[in-house]
Amino acid sequence: MSEKIKIAVLGYGNLGRGVELAAQNSKDLELTAVFSRRNPSEVKTCGAPVFSADEILSHKGKFDVLVLCGGSATDLPTQTPEFALNFNVVDSFDTHAKIPEHFAAVDAAAKKGGKVGIIAVGWDPGLFSLNRLFGESVLENGSSYTFWGKGVSQGHSDAIRRIKGVVDARQYTVPIESALERVRAGENPKLSTREKHLRECYVVAQDGADKARIEHEIKTMPNYFADYDTSVHFIDLATLKKEHGGIPHGGFVLRSGATGERGENKHLIEFSLKLDSNPEFTASVLVAYARAAYRLAQKGERGAFSVFDIAPALLSPKSADELRREIL
Amino acid sequence: MSEKIKIAVLGYGNLGRGVELAAQNSKDLELTAVFSRRNPSEVKTCGAPVFSADEILSHKGKFDVLVLCGGSATDLPTQTPEFALNFNVVDSFDTHAKIPEHFAAVDAAAKKGGKVGIIAVGWDPGLFSLNRLFGESVLENGSSYTFWGKGVSQGHSDAIRRIKGVVDARQYTVPIESALERVRAGENPKLSTREKHLRECYVVAQDGADKARIEHEIKTMPNYFADYDTSVHFIDLATLKKEHGGIPHGGFVLRSGATGERGENKHLIEFSLKLDSNPEFTASVLVAYARAAYRLAQKGERGAFSVFDIAPALLSPKSADELRREIL
Repeated sequence: MSEKIKIAVLGYGNLGRGVELAAQNSKDLELTAVFSRRNPSEVKTCGAPVFSADEILSHKGKFDVLVLCGGSATDLPTQTPEFALNFNVVDSFDTHAKIPEHFAAVDAAAKKGGKVGIIAVGWDPGLFSLNRLFGESVLENGSSYTFWGKGVSQGHSDAIRRIKGVVDARQYTVPIESALERVRAGENPKLSTREKHLRECYVVAQDGADKARIEHEIKTMPNYFADYDTSVHFIDLATLKKEHGGIPHGGFVLRSGATGERGENKHLIEFSLKLDSNPEFTASVLVAYARAAYRLAQKGERGAFSVFDIAPALLSPKSADELRREIL
Repeated sequence: MSEKIKIAVLGYGNLGRGVELAAQNSKDLELTAVFSRRNPSEVKTCGAPVFSADEILSHKGKFDVLVLCGGSATDLPTQTPEFALNFNVVDSFDTHAKIPEHFAAVDAAAKKGGKVGIIAVGWDPGLFSLNRLFGESVLENGSSYTFWGKGVSQGHSDAIRRIKGVVDARQYTVPIESALERVRAGENPKLSTREKHLRECYVVAQDGADKARIEHEIKTMPNYFADYDTSVHFIDLATLKKEHGGIPHGGFVLRSGATGERGENKHLIEFSLKLDSNPEFTASVLVAYARAAYRLAQKGERGAFSVFDIAPALLSPKSADELRREIL
């Protein structure tokens, strides 16, 4: 084995920690630096050295790929283009509607800096996107469906926490099994928002709070809950911590299509994920694409890439020969 | 839309016909020629003109990609390298053990001819291989499983037909649900051949044939049946044609893995196919990779490729911008 690929992370929350753990599972990668906006002495990693985010430019040339582990709302739109000027970067930007402008900004910066930037890596966008692409490319006469869950939505949990009288809350997005079954049966149904997912809320209320009002405010909240069948369960804080402390997620991508002279032959392609830890799995995908970023840079590639632009072999620690012999 | 990509097929059995039907579903591809070793006047296509396989070289330059629709046992080992000297080619070579030597032969020929050759395209090898690669690259700490079926195995059906006293037969490979469930539960089981699949045989015997002997010969046949729990059902020819006339297939690729400091978080990636027509679905995958072959050739690429080497965006009729905007 030749020298390991050196990666660094910027941001050490759940995702950054997940990258460290994923790199420890890998034979050909190592995490050599964590950059944080917190005081480095207060950041407790699983072994990787911690530096202040302010000094990141002084590490130029010391590692191969920077994995950006900030949020899509405010961190990544500025960070990814900024750091693509000086480093090969990978991010998990997941604001689907803003992907085109983010891609353009990263592409311009990475080309200027002579670097590779891979954006929107994870499972959705990411592995789910790939499966949407394979599905519609192979079965051109067909319909695509994406279902999410069962899993915790941080955004919806936060929205509940902002309601007066709420101490803490956890929201699960739940795919509706009967809708999934209709897709699997080849019905090609048109499904409304309400027909695809349920929202289950576990809420800790303050002592004496008006639970009926809280439940009403949740169920009628525009964008977040009003278009869904939503259930609200009041529980105590100890139960919330004990039974709802994880960050599971997952979902399904389905392509239902037909071939034959009269579309008489039906086909179903289904991809699904069941994840105990959404951030640790997302981090594992980021690490595989960090490997690809390094290899693309070694080949002289420059600019922005998405998962669509990357030959799958680049994700594997195995050589092309090994892959053909062992798993093709 | 610019001019369509012109494809041709060599061999017009179930697979070649499937390529014609798949191309008809596509906006950016057209099938412009069928080459057959049969008398062209006897080959009835769904519209594409038919030529003798002997005159294929005289069509050089008239189409963009040749899709080779022969068999892996005797046709493709010679055909794919031979035609890669003069055409961009795609094949569905599926003898897993011989993929490395086939790849090497096609690579040498395609480089010599200045062409692109994509080998081992379909669903296994093909989409299943891709999912094995994604699974083990993302969850490095884990186990991979492939199950096939429920579906018709032509090789096993043929093996039964060779038994004395058998008029016709159909063999289904059936994944064992309880084994699948153990994988999905994260048990990472070691599964023997017998624990993964059943073999169900529907057999039409000659009048007066010794059914007990036929059943015994099937169940004890080395390599094909002896290592499996096999059931044998004798039916009449009319029932076989009515209820077992299709060529369904499918299967499952699973990756079960763990992340976290002590592997405490379990993850399951599952990909599955349920196909009414194995050859028509395989043909649909071939057509998507024919599109990729054309684009690789346009970019100046040369030599052999497998599905591992091809950026997914090349499979889609959509532009990179459209893909990022619509399905990333």
